[in-house]
Amino acid sequence: MALDLLQGICAAAQKAISALPRETAAQVLRKGASGDYTKIIDSTAEAAAVAYLEAAGFRGRLVSEELGERRFGAEDYPIVVLDPVDGTTNATRGISFYSISAAIADGRLLSDVYAGAVLELPAGRLFAAERGKGALLDGRTIRANGDEPIASALIGVDLNVMGNRAKFMEMAPLCITAKHVRNMGSAAIELCYVASGALALYADNRSKLRVTDIAAALLILREAGGVALDLSGNVLDCPLDLKQRVSLVAGSRGTCSEALSIIGSSSK
Amino acid sequence: MALDLLQGICAAAQKAISALPRETAAQVLRKGASGDYTKIIDSTAEAAAVAYLEAAGFRGRLVSEELGERRFGAEDYPIVVLDPVDGTTNATRGISFYSISAAIADGRLLSDVYAGAVLELPAGRLFAAERGKGALLDGRTIRANGDEPIASALIGVDLNVMGNRAKFMEMAPLCITAKHVRNMGSAAIELCYVASGALALYADNRSKLRVTDIAAALLILREAGGVALDLSGNVLDCPLDLKQRVSLVAGSRGTCSEALSIIGSSSK
Repeated sequence: MALDLLQGICAAAQKAISALPRETAAQVLRKGASGDYTKIIDSTAEAAAVAYLEAAGFRGRLVSEELGERRFGAEDYPIVVLDPVDGTTNATRGISFYSISAAIADGRLLSDVYAGAVLELPAGRLFAAERGKGALLDGRTIRANGDEPIASALIGVDLNVMGNRAKFMEMAPLCITAKHVRNMGSAAIELCYVASGALALYADNRSKLRVTDIAAALLILREAGGVALDLSGNVLDCPLDLKQRVSLVAGSRGTCSEALSIIGSSSK
Repeated sequence: MALDLLQGICAAAQKAISALPRETAAQVLRKGASGDYTKIIDSTAEAAAVAYLEAAGFRGRLVSEELGERRFGAEDYPIVVLDPVDGTTNATRGISFYSISAAIADGRLLSDVYAGAVLELPAGRLFAAERGKGALLDGRTIRANGDEPIASALIGVDLNVMGNRAKFMEMAPLCITAKHVRNMGSAAIELCYVASGALALYADNRSKLRVTDIAAALLILREAGGVALDLSGNVLDCPLDLKQRVSLVAGSRGTCSEALSIIGSSSK
């Protein structure tokens, strides 16, 4: 039921953006609620999702990257957490790797998310999970990898630090240790790739990720047997509001511990 | 005519690998002619390409990542240069970003390539070029960006250095300078993205790229108005054989020069 709603949101947003010429999609409209610049592709996807929620008779709150928070009726819960396009830069440049991410929560925290869906585009693959029911990719059960030494692993690391040498150097030992490293430009998909075992780890130390980027993917990861930790090693949790900015490592418990140990030693 | 042959090769290889279950695709068969381990996905794609060339009555030589060199009749030329799957690690892990790359040359050098095709998968987008006729993406003309300061650019950098700290550190200033950085796992596609303007630059200092990875994409880039330089700043060229290993920067002339200047200063 919850997943039907989230899939409907993703499908509505996908349909709306698939009709946009790329030149139009990339045009900047204004600064969004999250602080990023809103492009036409973002606002188009978000408007389609809002229309879908209205048509579906949704009651509760929507937290979304561009509009901030919006109420549907007087109810505080559930909260739908939406990233209308994760990987906007990729999508508007013509890089075939971006996603639509939608989650639903019955409380105020990331840990209160009870269903999540990430639609990988343009591949059209749907990652989904409901609390306690496991994680699926296009209807097939997925599992995160077990503990895997980083020296034999394929990992994802976000290295978009724009002038911050210290942040880059903090992640250097992790990248150098790994057998393979990727930096694809959509955290929502890359976290789902950890859930499916495609990546053994995803790491981001930039304190830039928002709840909209990760709410759905982290439930999918948890239901696939993985964990997401903050850089102090605690299970990541935070309120579902757009002011939050987080860093994380995500993977199996053991691979996350190894990653934190490598990252920690880099600053010494 | 030449492009028809290359598109036929790509389509045959794509059809063959699309029928493989992912678990089968990832199985390792043997060490290929290029020195990499051949997986079932590679050998399946290559076998389909060979069958296509035979059926098309091709006369000349095939240089391909797994089989090395094979003659079709007594003719030395043309040479078809094939990478049956570029981004094998992505493809076999379930990362939606890999390609099939085919080029054809009337001489022994990279600069003798007169047609090239890169089929981006699973997106199914075809980058193609013929010498002197411009570059196309799904039939529409593409152009590389003009000179763009790296501080405002989206660039691709291959950071898969596996334990080689010096190679990683050589590229660190470039990554830190760029506005956005990607590391997607298929050089053929990432070079085509430079041709389409999606990326302003692609850089790889690992001395690991083979002619099979780049032959098609570099013609597409050149026909789109871009250049590829070795790390000494010379236009990249080399014999079309699998023993060659190259490093490169690719983009507009000015963006390449800025990149080489940043890379060069990193070792001082």
